[in-house]
Amino acid sequence: MNKRLILFQIGSILILEAGLMLPSLGVALLHSEQSTTAFFFSILITAGAGLLLKLFPPQDRRFGSREGLVITGLAWILASLFGALPFYLSAQIPSYIDALFETVSGFTTTGSTILANIEVLDQGLLFWRSFTHWIGGMGILVFLLAILPQNNSHSMHLMRSEAPGPEVSKFVPRLRDSAKILYQIYILLTLIMVGCLLFAGMPLFDSLCTAFGTAGTGGFGIWNDSIAHYDSVLIEQIIAVFMVIFGINFSLYFFVFTGKLKNAFKNEEFHWFLGIILAAILMIAVNIMPLFDGFWTSWRHSSFAVTSIISTSGFATVDFNLWPTFSKIVLCLLMMVGSCAGSTGGGMKIVRIGILFKSLTRDLKKFINPRIIRRVRFNGLSIDEHVVAGIQSYFVIYMLIILASILLISLNGFDLTTTITSVLTTFNNVGPGLEMVGPTGNFYDFSGFSKLIFCLNMLLGRLEIYPLLFCFTLSAQKSTKFQSTF
Amino acid sequence: MNKRLILFQIGSILILEAGLMLPSLGVALLHSEQSTTAFFFSILITAGAGLLLKLFPPQDRRFGSREGLVITGLAWILASLFGALPFYLSAQIPSYIDALFETVSGFTTTGSTILANIEVLDQGLLFWRSFTHWIGGMGILVFLLAILPQNNSHSMHLMRSEAPGPEVSKFVPRLRDSAKILYQIYILLTLIMVGCLLFAGMPLFDSLCTAFGTAGTGGFGIWNDSIAHYDSVLIEQIIAVFMVIFGINFSLYFFVFTGKLKNAFKNEEFHWFLGIILAAILMIAVNIMPLFDGFWTSWRHSSFAVTSIISTSGFATVDFNLWPTFSKIVLCLLMMVGSCAGSTGGGMKIVRIGILFKSLTRDLKKFINPRIIRRVRFNGLSIDEHVVAGIQSYFVIYMLIILASILLISLNGFDLTTTITSVLTTFNNVGPGLEMVGPTGNFYDFSGFSKLIFCLNMLLGRLEIYPLLFCFTLSAQKSTKFQSTF
Repeated sequence: MNKRLILFQIGSILILEAGLMLPSLGVALLHSEQSTTAFFFSILITAGAGLLLKLFPPQDRRFGSREGLVITGLAWILASLFGALPFYLSAQIPSYIDALFETVSGFTTTGSTILANIEVLDQGLLFWRSFTHWIGGMGILVFLLAILPQNNSHSMHLMRSEAPGPEVSKFVPRLRDSAKILYQIYILLTLIMVGCLLFAGMPLFDSLCTAFGTAGTGGFGIWNDSIAHYDSVLIEQIIAVFMVIFGINFSLYFFVFTGKLKNAFKNEEFHWFLGIILAAILMIAVNIMPLFDGFWTSWRHSSFAVTSIISTSGFATVDFNLWPTFSKIVLCLLMMVGSCAGSTGGGMKIVRIGILFKSLTRDLKKFINPRIIRRVRFNGLSIDEHVVAGIQSYFVIYMLIILASILLISLNGFDLTTTITSVLTTFNNVGPGLEMVGPTGNFYDFSGFSKLIFCLNMLLGRLEIYPLLFCFTLSAQKSTKFQSTF
Repeated sequence: MNKRLILFQIGSILILEAGLMLPSLGVALLHSEQSTTAFFFSILITAGAGLLLKLFPPQDRRFGSREGLVITGLAWILASLFGALPFYLSAQIPSYIDALFETVSGFTTTGSTILANIEVLDQGLLFWRSFTHWIGGMGILVFLLAILPQNNSHSMHLMRSEAPGPEVSKFVPRLRDSAKILYQIYILLTLIMVGCLLFAGMPLFDSLCTAFGTAGTGGFGIWNDSIAHYDSVLIEQIIAVFMVIFGINFSLYFFVFTGKLKNAFKNEEFHWFLGIILAAILMIAVNIMPLFDGFWTSWRHSSFAVTSIISTSGFATVDFNLWPTFSKIVLCLLMMVGSCAGSTGGGMKIVRIGILFKSLTRDLKKFINPRIIRRVRFNGLSIDEHVVAGIQSYFVIYMLIILASILLISLNGFDLTTTITSVLTTFNNVGPGLEMVGPTGNFYDFSGFSKLIFCLNMLLGRLEIYPLLFCFTLSAQKSTKFQSTF
């Protein structure tokens, strides 16, 4: 394990993070807010720590998949620890654990909050809170790759650890260029969304924050009643459409921009995604019809809730906690499904669900007729057996983490629905759950221990388990003196 | 597919079932109850249907694993359909779907009930209800194998389809002898339990019914307040111990009876089982201490609930629905874990959980150090990679069936806890769940459609998914004209 290289890279990330705090400092200065000093010192501390780590450049440039995993795990943990400083230093979130929860929830694009009253926060802090979504959505390391010169194999290991889904989208031979293209698409789509929201009559500050939350599929609002605040069908529909857009694999936009429209529209994961969304909207719209006047009102609320949950954004226009059990269960299942690989969304990812179902159908056919030899096909490609096995393993670990977390969170003694959905919503990076953590609730009342478990869950969910699991197993092994093997 | 052979075998099973109704007819006659005629006609109809199927003996004796799966699936469905007749014909359960639910719950050793007042049933019906647990516990087909001469390869395919756990325990070269030994152990243990209960002062009828329910790890009681009715610590402890005994792999008793004590005590699944039981009892006892006066009272209630749930019996002494969330979650997790392979208990089985955990740890080690080549070992044996993969697939299908069932059951509109735990408890063949289906509740209020879903879940759980899944896929394929492939 090349420790010095790892620390050196982490140094770059902290300096980058300090830089990313500058716009929020600007907002705070503009409104001459109390949080200005908090941002000033946060930037100083974060940049200082980063520079300290960069004092010792590594002689050895060796860099493998293990270094990639450790850098990714550590980068996200440290970025969260330092990113919490503005909230804590400004004393607007007086408990450091709460500030950390809020920051992890931001970077991992979860959007769960411990704040009962969001509106009392300074504008600078609100901006930083939403901006963490935007940074975390496409990934901190991908950003670093896009702006810093890196060895191509370094880049591969980093991108593979951070990118959502079983595979990395590689548009062009040089990964650094791929990272740049990704961020260009991301910035362009965000700007288009800001334009649409401005057009619909939303103020500039709100438009920026809402676009950050949507682009990262995070879901932090800047008003206590989230998107319901604007009471505008147009704004709702714009956000709903963009939540879907940011839940789609970004390689499809690359195809669109390079004129390969056919490739984009033939994508199988995209078809599954749209199919699941439409089916879920319809089922819920019919189920909640008795609560609203007419089919179109229930369709409107259903479509916003479904796109918000499956994209793992978590914005709210109505309190779906009051809906019938069937609708709630559909939403809980959508949390687990999540959006497409290579998007900014969370959950298990459509491609995994698709391959899982196809492999089960294949196994069943083989069971009936053992002479059949058939490969699982997805998106026109024959899927390698070890990828299929890997996805099954992923599902097993995924479910076991959920069950173990539910057990730990149940120690709070809250009702079962709160306990189960708080785990589902954090682990899948969605935001709201049901009952106490429903769209009108928050996570404030959980114990400090539980909040740390949630932080872990959010990070495990965002990084798709392995990088963090790797870091922890490594440190556990080290402490039991297996040091020699590394 | 050898259809005539399948129907011929099903015929034997129905005649056997008619014979197994005779003791209940005897009980009804003894008390000159109204249900006597119902039993008389049920036996007539069941035996008649069986004889009808046996009119056409198959010329072709070919018999493979596919025939084994279909016979198993059909046998359990038909035995349930005919077994429901006494309840229905006596009009003591007026709805046929309710009667079917109660019978499936009996045969699959679930113990969930639709009856709010059990005590109004005739003694003959109560006896039949508990006796179905005893029959289903060790298996209808295993019984058939034990009493009818069969080809050894036939027996293998049948036992493999019906036996719980990933592998069949084969004590002696001839499977028919293995089946006989299994039933001898089963009968002996049941008799010992009846003796213990009589000694503790329980009436004979109660002792028989309770022993049937415990031996099959079913859990139907004959009093509305289940085991709490007797208000006796001694009776509770006897039942708790026997629930554990019947949750252990029966091959261990074979070792004990043949003097290979060392083999029995070295069994790894047995260690896991006891370890999980002790840990769970301790955790719950501490958690519920504030509800009871002193540690020993809470230990007493905790130990009964834990052994009852992990053995998937479902007897109750206290209403654990009133316990803190942590205890409830532990019980829900135990439902899924279940007991040992080769026992009469349900759930996922300890051996699967054990191999699953070991394979995940192995994969993680391999992930950190890819040079490591290591096989998963369980019970001192190196486990074949395709067995490990099969267990992972089993877990995936298992979880997907649970999620799909929760979605369908949520259509009733009951609260989330009822919805989720009703599926967990039926699919794992436990009996009680939480809230509406808690130890003091029942399944009466669910829709007819939901009751059929529960029946399917109970059968899928008892037969470990594949035989039924196979039957359904087969009939689905036939109807879409893929007949030629068979």
